[in-house]
Amino acid sequence: MAPLFQGVIPPVLTPFLDSTPTVDTQTLAHQADRLIRAGVHGLFVLGSSAETAFLNAANRRQIIRTVREVAEGRVPVTAGVIDMTTPLVLEHVADAVECGAQGLVATAPFYVRTHPMEIINHFRMIHDAAPELPLFAYNIPVSVHSILGAEMVMDLAEEGVLAGIKDSGGNDGYLRGLINLRNQRGLSAEQFTILTGSETTVDFAYLAGADGVVPGLGNVDPVSYVQLHELLRAGKWEEAADLQNKIIELFRIVAVGTPDRMGGSSAGLGGFKAALQHLGVFPNGLMAPPHIPLNDAEIQEIARVVDEAKVREP
Amino acid sequence: MAPLFQGVIPPVLTPFLDSTPTVDTQTLAHQADRLIRAGVHGLFVLGSSAETAFLNAANRRQIIRTVREVAEGRVPVTAGVIDMTTPLVLEHVADAVECGAQGLVATAPFYVRTHPMEIINHFRMIHDAAPELPLFAYNIPVSVHSILGAEMVMDLAEEGVLAGIKDSGGNDGYLRGLINLRNQRGLSAEQFTILTGSETTVDFAYLAGADGVVPGLGNVDPVSYVQLHELLRAGKWEEAADLQNKIIELFRIVAVGTPDRMGGSSAGLGGFKAALQHLGVFPNGLMAPPHIPLNDAEIQEIARVVDEAKVREP
Amino acid sequence: MAPLFQGVIPPVLTPFLDSTPTVDTQTLAHQADRLIRAGVHGLFVLGSSAETAFLNAANRRQIIRTVREVAEGRVPVTAGVIDMTTPLVLEHVADAVECGAQGLVATAPFYVRTHPMEIINHFRMIHDAAPELPLFAYNIPVSVHSILGAEMVMDLAEEGVLAGIKDSGGNDGYLRGLINLRNQRGLSAEQFTILTGSETTVDFAYLAGADGVVPGLGNVDPVSYVQLHELLRAGKWEEAADLQNKIIELFRIVAVGTPDRMGGSSAGLGGFKAALQHLGVFPNGLMAPPHIPLNDAEIQEIARVVDEAKVREP
Amino acid sequence: MAPLFQGVIPPVLTPFLDSTPTVDTQTLAHQADRLIRAGVHGLFVLGSSAETAFLNAANRRQIIRTVREVAEGRVPVTAGVIDMTTPLVLEHVADAVECGAQGLVATAPFYVRTHPMEIINHFRMIHDAAPELPLFAYNIPVSVHSILGAEMVMDLAEEGVLAGIKDSGGNDGYLRGLINLRNQRGLSAEQFTILTGSETTVDFAYLAGADGVVPGLGNVDPVSYVQLHELLRAGKWEEAADLQNKIIELFRIVAVGTPDRMGGSSAGLGGFKAALQHLGVFPNGLMAPPHIPLNDAEIQEIARVVDEAKVREP
Repeated sequence: MAPLFQGVIPPVLTPFLDSTPTVDTQTLAHQADRLIRAGVHGLFVLGSSAETAFLNAANRRQIIRTVREVAEGRVPVTAGVIDMTTPLVLEHVADAVECGAQGLVATAPFYVRTHPMEIINHFRMIHDAAPELPLFAYNIPVSVHSILGAEMVMDLAEEGVLAGIKDSGGNDGYLRGLINLRNQRGLSAEQFTILTGSETTVDFAYLAGADGVVPGLGNVDPVSYVQLHELLRAGKWEEAADLQNKIIELFRIVAVGTPDRMGGSSAGLGGFKAALQHLGVFPNGLMAPPHIPLNDAEIQEIARVVDEAKVREP
Repeated sequence: MAPLFQGVIPPVLTPFLDSTPTVDTQTLAHQADRLIRAGVHGLFVLGSSAETAFLNAANRRQIIRTVREVAEGRVPVTAGVIDMTTPLVLEHVADAVECGAQGLVATAPFYVRTHPMEIINHFRMIHDAAPELPLFAYNIPVSVHSILGAEMVMDLAEEGVLAGIKDSGGNDGYLRGLINLRNQRGLSAEQFTILTGSETTVDFAYLAGADGVVPGLGNVDPVSYVQLHELLRAGKWEEAADLQNKIIELFRIVAVGTPDRMGGSSAGLGGFKAALQHLGVFPNGLMAPPHIPLNDAEIQEIARVVDEAKVREP
Repeated sequence: MAPLFQGVIPPVLTPFLDSTPTVDTQTLAHQADRLIRAGVHGLFVLGSSAETAFLNAANRRQIIRTVREVAEGRVPVTAGVIDMTTPLVLEHVADAVECGAQGLVATAPFYVRTHPMEIINHFRMIHDAAPELPLFAYNIPVSVHSILGAEMVMDLAEEGVLAGIKDSGGNDGYLRGLINLRNQRGLSAEQFTILTGSETTVDFAYLAGADGVVPGLGNVDPVSYVQLHELLRAGKWEEAADLQNKIIELFRIVAVGTPDRMGGSSAGLGGFKAALQHLGVFPNGLMAPPHIPLNDAEIQEIARVVDEAKVREP
Repeated sequence: MAPLFQGVIPPVLTPFLDSTPTVDTQTLAHQADRLIRAGVHGLFVLGSSAETAFLNAANRRQIIRTVREVAEGRVPVTAGVIDMTTPLVLEHVADAVECGAQGLVATAPFYVRTHPMEIINHFRMIHDAAPELPLFAYNIPVSVHSILGAEMVMDLAEEGVLAGIKDSGGNDGYLRGLINLRNQRGLSAEQFTILTGSETTVDFAYLAGADGVVPGLGNVDPVSYVQLHELLRAGKWEEAADLQNKIIELFRIVAVGTPDRMGGSSAGLGGFKAALQHLGVFPNGLMAPPHIPLNDAEIQEIARVVDEAKVREP
C-alpha cells in the first residue's frame, strides 16, 4: 500500500559541515528525528529549501539514506528530484528509488523554454521510470517560471501519472481551484493529494480542503505546525487563525537579511538556519555558495525573534 | 598565451544516437570539422543550443574531448559549464579543464532567487577554480531570469575574473552599453571580449564594436556567417546588412514548429536539426526528451526554406 | 461622521444604451436598487468592472449622481477616480465631490514608470483635494503593474491620508500581511478598512480579519454574497466555505469567452453582463469598444450556468 | 497629399508654468521653432515624453495649436492621442483633428486586459474617425504592457488603417523584422513608415532600413540628431556610429536621478528639462505631479554633462 503524504510534511533543511558543501549527516539525522518526535506526518527531503539545487548526486543519495533510516517505521519520506530536464531528473529518480525514497517530487523542466505538452511528457517519463512510487508535481513558479495548469494536473492525476501536488505558487485561489477540480472529477484525497507550500496561509488551504502543508518554517517550529494541523482538522478555525498569526510572527526571520545585501534565498534559508543554530539544533548556519552569510547583527535579531516566539521543542 | 575567442564561434549542436540521450560523437566530430572548414574562428561546445541542460557529466566530457580533438591546432574550443548553482558548476569546471577546454562560459545561478553580490561570488569562485582559462559570462535572461548588470560585468573584468561575455539578451542597446563601458575603462578587446548571441543583428553588434558572434544558426550555414563577419570587418556595412537579411530568411526554420504544438526550444533546435539532416550533416533530428519532435509537414517546410536559401557547404 | 465601507460592497457594473458608450441610467438605478434590496452594505461605482477606463467625465458624473440618488439614506456610495496620473485624477476627484460621492478609490499612477515616493505624493495630493472623504487605495497590479507595499500603505494610514484599501492583487497572504500590520500599529477597522476584491476567497479574507468584500460577481448574485458575509461574521466557517464553493460554480461565467477569441476583460465583463441580461436585470450585454461581444453560443452557455446556480433575486 | 513623417521627428517636451500643470505656450513655441531651425523633419507633440499622460483635453488642444502655428509651412506635426481605451482616444482624435494635427499616434489600449483582436478593433475605429490623417501605431510595451505583433501591424497597414509605426520597444531585432515584413509585402516607406524611438541605436535602425527616429533627447540636442540622420542617409556608417556614441555620452542625463529617490520618468524627463533649463531654452525644469523634482546636486551634474557634450545650438 502506498504511503500517505498528508498532514504536516516539512521540507527538511540540509545542514552542512563546510561550504563544499559536505552534508552533516549526524545533524540531519538529529533534525529528522526531532521533527518526527514533534509529530509531523511525513518528511520531504531534497526540496528547494534543502538547497537541492546546490547538491550533487552523492549528496542527494546520502540525504535520502540518512533520513529514511531515521524515519523507518515512523513516517514516510518523499524526495525531490529537482533538475533542469527529464534526462537529468531520471538519473535522480533512479538514485532516489535505490536509496529508499517512498515518494517523488518533481518540478516542470526549467532553463529551457518549455510548453504544456512537454511538461506532460516530462511527468509521464518520470512516472514510467518509477511507477511504484507516488509522484508529486511541484508547482514553484518563482523557480521554474511556469505554472502548472490545473486542468493539465488533473488530467495527469486521472491518467495515474500524478499522485498529488505540492503548491508553492503563493496563490490560494489556484489551490482552491485544484481542490474543487479534483472533487468534480470524483477523485479522493488518497487518489490525489493536495499540499500547500505556503507557511502563512495554512488555515486558508485547509478551509478550502487541502490535505496538508509542506512548511519550510516547520524545520524551526514543527510543534506549532502540528498543533495548527490539529486545530484545523478539528474545525477550530478561529483558534487556528490565531495560531497561524503567531507563527507568522516567527516567519519574520526570513526577512532579517535585506535585499540591499542578499537575495531571497540567502535571507530565507539563512534565517531558518540561524534560528536552528540558536535553538541548538544545528551547529552552524552554513549555506552552500554563492549564498551570502548573515552577519552578526542579523543573527542576533533572528535570535531575538525566535526567543520572542517561545518556540517549543518536541 | 590565452586563445582568442573573436569572430564567428558557433555554439556546436549536439547530435544524438537515441533519446537517452546518447551523444553521436562521430557526427559531432564531422560537424565540428565542417564548421572549421567553413572558416569559423572558434567553437563553443555545451551552450544552450547544445542541449547542455539535458546532458550529464559523462555526455559533457565526451563532447569536449571529441571537439577538442577535431579542433586541435586549428581553432580554440570554449565550453559551457551550465548548471543551477556554484557547487555544481564547479564540478563541470573541473571536468572541462580535465578534458581540455580552452575557455569557460558560465551563466548566473538560476532556480534559486539570486542577487548581484551572489552572482559576483559565483563568477569569482569559478575563476578561482580555473584561473588559467578565460572565463566568459553568459547573459541569457530567457533561461536564468536575471540580467548581468553592465557595471558589475566590467568590475569583474577589471578584477581579472571575467575575460569576456556572450550576450544572448536580445537587446542591442545593452550590448553597445557594455562595449562603450569597456572602452571607457581602457580595456582592449583582448582583455575583455564581447560576443553577441543574436543571429539576426550581427551587423548592429559589429557596428557598435562587438568582437564576434555565437550564432546557433551558424551550425546550419557557417559559410554565410563567416562571410558576414568578413564584410563587417571590411566596413562593407550595407552589403553586410543585405547578407544579414538573407540569413534571416533562413532563420525562419526556427518558427516552423508553432506554439500551439511545442515550446520555443523544440521549435528552434528542431528546426536546426531538421535542416542539418536535410543537408546530410546529421543522420537524424533527435532531440533530448521532453522535446516535441517536428512532424513530417514541418520537416518538409524546413527543407523547403533551406533549399530556398541555397546554403553553401564548406 | 464618515460613512462606513464594510461588508459587501459590489463594484456596480455600468449598463449602456449604445456603444458610444451612453450610460443607461435607468437600468443603473434599477441595478443599484436591486443590490441594496439584497442587503449589500455599500456601493462602489466607477471601479474597474464599471468600465471606468472607457468613460469620460460626463459619463462618470452621471453614474455617481444616479447611484447616489438611489442609495440615499440606505447605503453609502464610494467612487473610483481612475486615471493615469495625479492631475487627471484630481479632476475626477473634484467631479466626484460635486456629485456627492461619500468615499474615493484611487490606484497608483500608471502608463508612466513610477516609484513608491511618487505613489505617496499621489495619494497625499488626492487626500488634500478632498480631505473630508475617506480615501481608499486600490491595489490592482494586473492593471497598473505595481503593487502597493504594505508598509507604505500603513504609513499613509497613520498619516491620515488613506482610510482603507481595496485589494485586487489576488494574493491572500498579502492581504493577511496588511491586516496584521494594521493591528500591530494599533489601528482599528474603522480607522483603516481592508476589503478584498477577490470573488473566490472571501472566506480566507474574513478568516484573516478582512472587513468586507468588493465582488464583481456580486452584481449577478448579491444575495449569496450577503449570505456569505453573514455566515462568516457568525463564525460558521465551513458552511461559508461551502457557499463560497457554490458561488465559484457561478463564477465560471467569466471564462466562457475563451482567450483564442477575446481578452480577459471582454470575457469577464461580457459574462457578468450576459448573466444580468439573462436574469432580466440588464436589457442588453453591451460593453464599451474595443471589447469583443460574446457570441450566441457563449451567451447560451452563460445562461445555462446561471440557471444551474439558481441565483436568488432579492 | 499626406505629409511625410520621415527623418528626425522629436517628441516635443511640454514646458510648464506651474505644477497644475499649466502649459507654457511661449516656451513651447520657442522650443518648436528651435527644433525646426535645427533642421528636424517633423514634430511629434503629445508623446509620452510630453507628459501627455498628465494632460487634460484643454492642455492637449493648446499644445497642438501652439506647435502647428509655429510649424506652419515648414514641417508637419503629428499628435499623440494617448489614453486608456477607444472611447477616450476617439475624443482626443476629434480634438486633434480640430486643432490641425497632420498625423495621429495611438497606443494599444491599456489598464484593461486586452487581446490582439481588440487592439485591431481599436486601431480600426481610430482610423475610421479620422480617415484623412495618417495613423501611426505606437509600440511602447513599458507603458502599455503589450507588444504589437509584426504580422498584425502589417495586416493593418495593408488594410489602410495604419500609415506607420513608432517603435519604442527597445528591441532592434523586432524593428528589423517589421521592416523586412513590410518589404516582403511590397509596401514602400511612404505607404508604411517605420520610426525608431530609441535614442541610442539610431544607426542600427537605419542600417536595417528604418525611415526615421523620434528621439526624446532630440529636444536637448537636435543638431546632432539631424547630423546623425544625414550621415546615415549618406551611408557613412562608422562616422555615424561615432556620433551616436557621442550622443550616448549626453544621454547619461537621464540617469542622474537614481532609483533610490525616483522613478524612471522623473529621472528621464527631469534630466531633459534640467538640460534645457541649463541651455537657456526652458525657464524651469517643472514636471507634472507626482514626479519627483531633481535636487541641486543632480541638476549641477546634468549641467556638467551637458557642458561636456558641447551641445550646439541651431
